[in-house]
Amino acid sequence: MQPRSSPRSTVATGRNHRPATRSRGIPEATVARLPLYLRALTALSERSVPTVSSEELAAAAGVNSAKLRKDFSYLGSYGTRGVGYDVEYLVYQISRELGLTQDWPVVIVGIGNLGAALANYGGFASRGFRVAALIDADPAMAGKPVAGIPVQHTDELEKIISDNGVSIGVISTPAGAAQQVCERLIAAGVTSILNFAPTVLSVPDGVDVRKVDLSIELQILAFHEQRKAGEEAEAANRKGPDGDMSAVMPA
Amino acid sequence: MQPRSSPRSTVATGRNHRPATRSRGIPEATVARLPLYLRALTALSERSVPTVSSEELAAAAGVNSAKLRKDFSYLGSYGTRGVGYDVEYLVYQISRELGLTQDWPVVIVGIGNLGAALANYGGFASRGFRVAALIDADPAMAGKPVAGIPVQHTDELEKIISDNGVSIGVISTPAGAAQQVCERLIAAGVTSILNFAPTVLSVPDGVDVRKVDLSIELQILAFHEQRKAGEEAEAANRKGPDGDMSAVMPA
Repeated sequence: MQPRSSPRSTVATGRNHRPATRSRGIPEATVARLPLYLRALTALSERSVPTVSSEELAAAAGVNSAKLRKDFSYLGSYGTRGVGYDVEYLVYQISRELGLTQDWPVVIVGIGNLGAALANYGGFASRGFRVAALIDADPAMAGKPVAGIPVQHTDELEKIISDNGVSIGVISTPAGAAQQVCERLIAAGVTSILNFAPTVLSVPDGVDVRKVDLSIELQILAFHEQRKAGEEAEAANRKGPDGDMSAVMPA
Repeated sequence: MQPRSSPRSTVATGRNHRPATRSRGIPEATVARLPLYLRALTALSERSVPTVSSEELAAAAGVNSAKLRKDFSYLGSYGTRGVGYDVEYLVYQISRELGLTQDWPVVIVGIGNLGAALANYGGFASRGFRVAALIDADPAMAGKPVAGIPVQHTDELEKIISDNGVSIGVISTPAGAAQQVCERLIAAGVTSILNFAPTVLSVPDGVDVRKVDLSIELQILAFHEQRKAGEEAEAANRKGPDGDMSAVMPA
């Protein structure tokens, strides 16, 4: 992506796009936090909560509240003093900024346990992602319905991408097949890849890849478990027979 | 978690714990980034790269380099001017800080497609997480091996937790079963829950829950797709027949 030489006026595209100048101005770290805000806001919306303070929302999203206010300033959303943010409007604003108010057809390649779990995953459709096709290299899978969608053979990959105007591909193949699948998806017109395969993919400039590591949240839990165990040991030690902390020597 | 009234000296626990005072001093946002650094460092380590600059590592982890240096200062890791950080030592430091240098037995409850995918997921074992047991409510599943581990029935849940000293539970049941499973896990001694079920779990104080939303990375890709489409439209417009940008009106 090359930086633009000068700011441009907004452009009517006839589609549901935000002004490009504005989208480009949002820092990547803010973009990465928008889905966290959206998840917290959606939970509030489901409980019919009408407004939320920046502190409450920041706590629910696991973000510092000053950072949240700064992030929202990029969206032009400042809330109302003493009232907070309108939950429904903020859901709309963030969804629009993320491009979730339009329909994104995605294909899932590799329909093992993980691919089938992803095909069944309700959280995609509710965010504007429509599973347009499931693709697997195993001829025995072809025609078999998974989550109500018949699996298609890898031979059809290029035609499926083209017929459905797919720009986002999800790879849930074994590691050894992922790079080749990635290259075929890109050659067929896909420009964003969500990679669940345990391997690093090489892609040309202009293609975005995000890798999902299912162990990341477990690692954060392990940190807290370790801390809890440390606190318990410490508390037990403080309640020791002589109650004399000076007797406790560093490890 | 209540804040401690005063700093304490470190305590010898006979286990692999960090000094509690130091762990507690790390901001939650830094903790959340440590797995991202670790992922990037592990990739460098696999390529036998000996040292890395803060800029390179920050780019690989998708984090601002000033923030990375600040994060590492909490670990007491400052790198060497002109040389950067020692990759292997940093892998060790972060793993130790996250508690990954010890063995964490985990149970997975709900062995549908997602549970089976998680049981087969190589990224757990490589991070110190050992799948101690797979549990499912379907009696027909009992004894059936998944990823080489025989599935056990939910009736055994309490005994499994206790026998294996499990403190981390993974829930991959349908939404309707998740809260009850969560309560049984906690009653049996689990204090950290990784929730893949599409529902919000209520837990008592002292129990940590992390929820995995598989659509978060897709949302970030959608943002970039939208931006790319906007740029293409803008570029096409600039190359229009008259080349006159003033003719382009805002949408």
